[in-house]
Amino acid sequence: MSSERLIYLPLGGAGEIGMNAYVYGYGEEGRERLILVDLGVAFPDMDSTPGVDLITADISWLEERADQLEAVFVTHAHEDHVGGVGIHYSRLKAPIYARPFTANIAARKLEEKGQDPEAVQIAGTWPDTVTVGPFTVGFLPVSHSIPEAAALVIDTPAGRIVHSGDFKLDPNPIVGEAWDPDLWGSVGKDGVLALVCDSTNVFSPKPGRSESDIAPELKPLVAEAKGMVVATTFASNIARLKSLAEAGRDAGRSVVLLGRAMKRMVTAGVESGVLTDFPSTVAPEAAADIPRENVMLIVTGSQGERRAASAQLARGKYLGFEIGEGDMFLFSSKTIPGNEKAVAGIMNALSEKGVDIVDEEGGRYHVSGHANRPDLLEVHKILNPQMVLPMHGEHRHLRAHAKLAEGGGRTGIVAPNGSVVTLSGNNPGVTDYVETGRTYLDGAALVGAFDGVIRDRIRLALNGHVVVAIIIDEGDEPLEDAWAELRGLPERGASRSDLQELIEYDVGQFLARAERKTVNDDGRLEEEVKRVVRHLCQSEIGKRPEVTVLISRLVAE
Amino acid sequence: MSSERLIYLPLGGAGEIGMNAYVYGYGEEGRERLILVDLGVAFPDMDSTPGVDLITADISWLEERADQLEAVFVTHAHEDHVGGVGIHYSRLKAPIYARPFTANIAARKLEEKGQDPEAVQIAGTWPDTVTVGPFTVGFLPVSHSIPEAAALVIDTPAGRIVHSGDFKLDPNPIVGEAWDPDLWGSVGKDGVLALVCDSTNVFSPKPGRSESDIAPELKPLVAEAKGMVVATTFASNIARLKSLAEAGRDAGRSVVLLGRAMKRMVTAGVESGVLTDFPSTVAPEAAADIPRENVMLIVTGSQGERRAASAQLARGKYLGFEIGEGDMFLFSSKTIPGNEKAVAGIMNALSEKGVDIVDEEGGRYHVSGHANRPDLLEVHKILNPQMVLPMHGEHRHLRAHAKLAEGGGRTGIVAPNGSVVTLSGNNPGVTDYVETGRTYLDGAALVGAFDGVIRDRIRLALNGHVVVAIIIDEGDEPLEDAWAELRGLPERGASRSDLQELIEYDVGQFLARAERKTVNDDGRLEEEVKRVVRHLCQSEIGKRPEVTVLISRLVAE
Repeated sequence: MSSERLIYLPLGGAGEIGMNAYVYGYGEEGRERLILVDLGVAFPDMDSTPGVDLITADISWLEERADQLEAVFVTHAHEDHVGGVGIHYSRLKAPIYARPFTANIAARKLEEKGQDPEAVQIAGTWPDTVTVGPFTVGFLPVSHSIPEAAALVIDTPAGRIVHSGDFKLDPNPIVGEAWDPDLWGSVGKDGVLALVCDSTNVFSPKPGRSESDIAPELKPLVAEAKGMVVATTFASNIARLKSLAEAGRDAGRSVVLLGRAMKRMVTAGVESGVLTDFPSTVAPEAAADIPRENVMLIVTGSQGERRAASAQLARGKYLGFEIGEGDMFLFSSKTIPGNEKAVAGIMNALSEKGVDIVDEEGGRYHVSGHANRPDLLEVHKILNPQMVLPMHGEHRHLRAHAKLAEGGGRTGIVAPNGSVVTLSGNNPGVTDYVETGRTYLDGAALVGAFDGVIRDRIRLALNGHVVVAIIIDEGDEPLEDAWAELRGLPERGASRSDLQELIEYDVGQFLARAERKTVNDDGRLEEEVKRVVRHLCQSEIGKRPEVTVLISRLVAE
Repeated sequence: MSSERLIYLPLGGAGEIGMNAYVYGYGEEGRERLILVDLGVAFPDMDSTPGVDLITADISWLEERADQLEAVFVTHAHEDHVGGVGIHYSRLKAPIYARPFTANIAARKLEEKGQDPEAVQIAGTWPDTVTVGPFTVGFLPVSHSIPEAAALVIDTPAGRIVHSGDFKLDPNPIVGEAWDPDLWGSVGKDGVLALVCDSTNVFSPKPGRSESDIAPELKPLVAEAKGMVVATTFASNIARLKSLAEAGRDAGRSVVLLGRAMKRMVTAGVESGVLTDFPSTVAPEAAADIPRENVMLIVTGSQGERRAASAQLARGKYLGFEIGEGDMFLFSSKTIPGNEKAVAGIMNALSEKGVDIVDEEGGRYHVSGHANRPDLLEVHKILNPQMVLPMHGEHRHLRAHAKLAEGGGRTGIVAPNGSVVTLSGNNPGVTDYVETGRTYLDGAALVGAFDGVIRDRIRLALNGHVVVAIIIDEGDEPLEDAWAELRGLPERGASRSDLQELIEYDVGQFLARAERKTVNDDGRLEEEVKRVVRHLCQSEIGKRPEVTVLISRLVAE
């Protein structure tokens, strides 16, 4: 029996929707040659990651094995799949393969971080393949909400894996390749060991709808609008941008794109050749003189992002445009869980201006980019894999998807982040676990989720911060004066006295009677002062703040 | 013409869903006699109110006029209507009127804050009324998702107002009074000047469903379950608790209530007489020996609250119960916007334990407590008010509801928080604005939304905190040693050196060459030190932290 094995190890994306990073390995245990599929980001929130810029999977495991890594394959250009390639390139230094549109975006990510964009290699489509070490990888076109999405056909000495990437079964996706069951059938007919599969919409019971269902709804909506029309959607959904722009053009409106991401995506579409017949657009400056009923803005910020065009327009004038009474604002998008409050905030600000808001109306003006439950079953059938390994989902999605596969008589394996799954051999399944987690890009620094940095920030936000400075003189005697500052705490408490002065007084009193062994011991002195401050605050404001004590010991000169 | 006027002034609840507080006034301008309808709370979140315990409307306007305030009327016992009566009682000192169940809860709120629960007066139901100053107020029973909800019929010399409170049109609400169109018709037939009306579900196009639709769905679900059944819903939805408990009993299961709020609500139901035939329950201790397939837990925490029973069970063992493979967890509840991540977190933790999760399934196991769009229209018709003033909604809800009223030939007035609406006279409408906002209960302290306290906490969370202590000696010379502490920032930056030491070094260098006029000026010195620290941090970690500088000036003894 071969001592070589084929493994699958999700580092991110299996246990959440976001920060995808999936490792495959083949070879002797511990000496496998590796590939990484996708290296994406997740977005921070105040609850768990205040102040953080971006989140990626913790790739330490892979970094320690960078010499075993053959290449990175990126399935498509969504941020949760490509957003981390620039951040981590210097740690992995492996070539990055992608189809042209995705490669265009990936190269820009490297440039932004001062890395060489030449590391990105453009790949053709299946049956073209790239061979790296023991892996032969083909990009199998599939429909999704971005152009040139691909599944990967990964052939190994132990059998064929299909890694679905994000996909839907769209016979008419407007931009990009249609779902091609014959092509997928040809991949399945030689036998598929494992399907590693998108689970996002496993809870949606009906078959998914086509991107082409949207345009016929958009046209009359825009045609009948009286004032200015503003529409927002995901900038990467170039098919939707096209449908929106066409609806505007057909209604005799000048189309204006607003927002950096919008322009970046359309540029990438044109440069990579996927976008050839986009209606002509007008620069914001040039639209100033056009009557508002002849203008249609297509803008970023469908998720309520504070600095995007939607939020700017909701706040007031933006690049010469001001939206108001009689205008229409269309959300041709779904609100991603977690963004509800931000999106509602924009809707309310628009409502205050008298703007008529149209939302997706239960799917009328938006369709999902992911395969629903019956679509997943169809792909299981067409590829007929021995095993299904659900990915791209929270745990409950993975579990439901595995059950779906089991219901079809296949082996379903729930393998959340960190699970090492041995796919080869007679008993495929989870054989090991590795430490994994999240890495935060915080300003220019990379911070580990368990470093305590973010935990400290959360504590400051919840509890406020009292800072106390104490001076110990040259004779090891504390000065009885203490200096305190408060941040994020009320000025006065129950006694109505100034809280800062109360703290300085109480700490001074404590120092006056402190024993020498306390004064001489930084740790002990700090603990005692914290205790004094917290005790006082508890009785004054019913809260125990974070306390930092700065002890300055003067030395005789 | 009379110099007296009738005014309506929402202080909270008109512009958000939560923290309801509506003022009505009658009398000469500036000397109106006032009543307050509801005094509720809203719940904090990390995005805007980290560390805050509860939020209420800023009632300063009313506090300044406490001598004009006749009484507080509470429509029902949901936290967003009654939760603030204890917090603010000492500022208003007005009697509180409510129906028995609501009064029971309100009295407990006063007790919790050390106030006299006798301030709460039990009111009868319409046509019984309470007269306070120029107002005669009747509690008109209405169905909602809590027992004994009421609309208020407010008769004034200028005409009749109906304040809907929260309501739905439920012919069979299981607990509490059914929707009674004849009774409401009798209120309308004498003429209604203004309907001030719940707008929560104005965007729901179909008529609302009855609470009684749920029990027939629950029974087979619970009867067919194999392992332990755990169900969560809002504790105050006593009708749902009853349907759940009956489904458990009918399936031969012992029913256990878990969670403080659950017990408090059932106790209030029994004490106030609204709850008479609740299935018998078993104490948690007593359930330990019962086989799990014969147990049904009804638990708090449907919104993912960290300390509630649902979250505790998802984390592990709780009060002797442990949920696992083969058990079922039912969310007989809707997730309130903003709580999606917390609820998903619980679902995923349960999924990891192998628990089968059943959610509301698009309304199968949950119905809303609020009137949908057609129901609102029905109430407009039955009461036939001259004006409709939408409340209990975000701005977009208010605007849509006003449009709905206008479509029916009535005057719709959008009056967000702070709008003084004159209801009397020939030109009713918004005639003034008063300052309003939000007050935070933070530990034991009340903090204003604009005090800067919470803004400071958010900044600490986003940026981290550097604290620097500087000592100026008796001769007005700075010691060149500086002491720094970092909170919520990485230990090392681009140079890989210790960031704290770098800060101490740079500040020391700055002090060594600082001019005397800088050293002698606290404000100037502080600004310069902040600049030095921020500049260093920007280049080391790409981030500009919050900086606090403590300057200790030694004085010769």
